[in-house]
Amino acid sequence: MQRLGEMILKYGEGIGDSIVKVDYFLNHRVDCALLWEMADEIKEHFKAKGIDAVLTVEASGIALASFAALALGVPMVFAKKHETKNQSDACLEAKVHSFTHNKDYNIRINAKHLNRGDGILIVDDFLADGEAVRGMRELIRKAGCELKGIAIAIEKGFQKGGKELRAEGVDLLSLAVVEKIENGKISLNPNY
Amino acid sequence: MQRLGEMILKYGEGIGDSIVKVDYFLNHRVDCALLWEMADEIKEHFKAKGIDAVLTVEASGIALASFAALALGVPMVFAKKHETKNQSDACLEAKVHSFTHNKDYNIRINAKHLNRGDGILIVDDFLADGEAVRGMRELIRKAGCELKGIAIAIEKGFQKGGKELRAEGVDLLSLAVVEKIENGKISLNPNY
Repeated sequence: MQRLGEMILKYGEGIGDSIVKVDYFLNHRVDCALLWEMADEIKEHFKAKGIDAVLTVEASGIALASFAALALGVPMVFAKKHETKNQSDACLEAKVHSFTHNKDYNIRINAKHLNRGDGILIVDDFLADGEAVRGMRELIRKAGCELKGIAIAIEKGFQKGGKELRAEGVDLLSLAVVEKIENGKISLNPNY
Repeated sequence: MQRLGEMILKYGEGIGDSIVKVDYFLNHRVDCALLWEMADEIKEHFKAKGIDAVLTVEASGIALASFAALALGVPMVFAKKHETKNQSDACLEAKVHSFTHNKDYNIRINAKHLNRGDGILIVDDFLADGEAVRGMRELIRKAGCELKGIAIAIEKGFQKGGKELRAEGVDLLSLAVVEKIENGKISLNPNY
């Protein structure tokens, strides 16, 4: 997606050889007009795929997932990373390994919030090794739902998540793919 | 706001005498069509007030804040509750006391993400004692910005936050006000 690519090149910062810092427009300060355009691309790609709900993980996936769900006319559910009080209902839980923070954490949703048989679209801000997606797919399986596709703002093309999902035949829409980070410079795959 | 009130009465659960559980449509599963209507009310109230950015706190404020920012045509910034890696820039920080969890935590934003002099609208899902709002106002002051108003999905009218803000002359828009919770039954203030 051209405008996202331009924003990454203009405002993104490459840190080390694997971190893409885009907190100026994507996941801390949020450029809502840009995200709405991104949501429209997601809608165009998935509108005929039988999506009943959008699933993401707090916190940085919520804005894009909400916009995608609004565009598709479906609800959005975000999995929680942190224990919450007031959680009286049965939960579905999955373990996620974070390579960034080098630790495991659990994500969970209220079991009532996905209906058995629903077609689910996963939306997230980043795809790297695919660990968060793996956890969300486990929640989808446990809920008896069907994964219809995955929409990602920025895929790190040099990590394995995207390759594995495509090899598996998952309908994966990455709006931008970072090929390389070198000396602070971010290179994008020109095919996205 | 009538439809929000109907949703609270239909799907909300009162727990004890102070907890309003609305995770079916507001802050875990998100009814995006409803939130878009709420955003439209927020826009109508604040569109002439010189709003340059919307501020909220992760995670449950993000969906409504994003929609309000989209409706107003401005960016949204969410304050973070959890330490993040990759945070190389200067932060503004404020302490927040949570009565629900009986502990203090810090909220923080990248100092670059609010511009000195900007008019800021705070948006959040709940207003109870006003602690989160107090923290966000401290961030706004530290950023050299001006608070233009506060939009809240559900105010707990039996807690002090709303009263104090109104007494101070803050432009506070609460889309629904819960008056009382008794034996699991939620009563709304009919004037909202």
